[in-house]
Amino acid sequence: MTAALDQIRIVLCQTSHPGNIGAAARAMKTMGLNRLFLVAPKRYPDPEAEAMSAGASDLLAHATVCTTLQEALAGCSLVIGLSARKRELTHELVSARSAAIGAVRHAAHAPVALVFGNETSGLSNAELIQCQRLAMVPANPAYSSLNLAAAVQILAYELRQQALAPMQENEPAHRLATHEEIEGLYQHLETTLVSTGYLNPDQPKRLMPRLRRLFGRARLEKEEINLLRGILKSIRR
Amino acid sequence: MTAALDQIRIVLCQTSHPGNIGAAARAMKTMGLNRLFLVAPKRYPDPEAEAMSAGASDLLAHATVCTTLQEALAGCSLVIGLSARKRELTHELVSARSAAIGAVRHAAHAPVALVFGNETSGLSNAELIQCQRLAMVPANPAYSSLNLAAAVQILAYELRQQALAPMQENEPAHRLATHEEIEGLYQHLETTLVSTGYLNPDQPKRLMPRLRRLFGRARLEKEEINLLRGILKSIRR
Repeated sequence: MTAALDQIRIVLCQTSHPGNIGAAARAMKTMGLNRLFLVAPKRYPDPEAEAMSAGASDLLAHATVCTTLQEALAGCSLVIGLSARKRELTHELVSARSAAIGAVRHAAHAPVALVFGNETSGLSNAELIQCQRLAMVPANPAYSSLNLAAAVQILAYELRQQALAPMQENEPAHRLATHEEIEGLYQHLETTLVSTGYLNPDQPKRLMPRLRRLFGRARLEKEEINLLRGILKSIRR
Repeated sequence: MTAALDQIRIVLCQTSHPGNIGAAARAMKTMGLNRLFLVAPKRYPDPEAEAMSAGASDLLAHATVCTTLQEALAGCSLVIGLSARKRELTHELVSARSAAIGAVRHAAHAPVALVFGNETSGLSNAELIQCQRLAMVPANPAYSSLNLAAAVQILAYELRQQALAPMQENEPAHRLATHEEIEGLYQHLETTLVSTGYLNPDQPKRLMPRLRRLFGRARLEKEEINLLRGILKSIRR
């Protein structure tokens, strides 16, 4: 049952303190997660990361260091961003537990990513927009400042609990679209909307983020991407 | 509902590293716990504890330092020891989640203690014998070495989830579209697809049912209906 955990990536973006990377690796390993991705870490590799990883230095050794978040998400069918606060333009917002349920279910078919932002500033808007869902650890409203590794620990813990729980729900019958397929659709959509005159590239307002939010909720299947792109192609310029 | 959390003590026994005490205080505060008891800490107070507590130094300031575990347990109606491994002399052994359920239930009546042992050696037999139950975080059997503050974080998280239950997540922030509004969109979509030539009315295949299935999953909001119909209007015939 814990095979699903091998398909779940923990993606740490722009991490400032290498000690947090090491502590996150340790947190992951205690729960049987092993796929660590580091996007543009400020200092890495670093002896502090090694020290804090304790017995999990193998995860550090096998970590994938990327320049952009997009690289880290290649092939993923579900991308969940971790947020410390409620955001304005709300993605689908779920609890850590619901996020884990969704992640384990999707992981049976294709890789899944949980994305954690920088310690101080969290996920940037550019990072956020690549996530299909946002997850929040229900914390003390008066002090919700979870340490990065502590947040990873809670999510990793929930993932393990879900992976160990007997699966009950029906699996999706169709193959879900990958991150690249979904991004390809958004680009096609944007170009088309500019050509119909609906989207003014000088004043895009919040049009594309709103459409991303809508389709993000639906979790598109590969076949549906083809269908939507067929429609876009049929629109005369 | 979170009043129960005020009745729950986190008791750290013989802690070696003051940094772990600070990190545990931070973990507690993020989940709304505030009653920290320290039994014979090796080094305390200590600037490292302060540094690691981040914004939770008030918990350190109000921590109760005791000489013996017995002192820390005075008045408690339920004492749960945390164990990293299965013990010979089996107490009732429960999961972290079950421990939290029991703790929150008892906390409605009288104080409850969760007792954590030394970082290296765990709970001594003399400490163990004062616990009524043992709780274990279900971890990776190949590497179950949770950092002390990470273990406190998971228990504190579970306690908060139990105290808040039933929790509502994901209350829709926006008004969902009505049946009529959704049907209006589908008609508009169908007419447009016929006009672009994508949909052949004599051979409609399963096009509209597939689009209905996609948008049905997303549960459209009123605003999104307006957005999508605006796009349809912008498509030149």
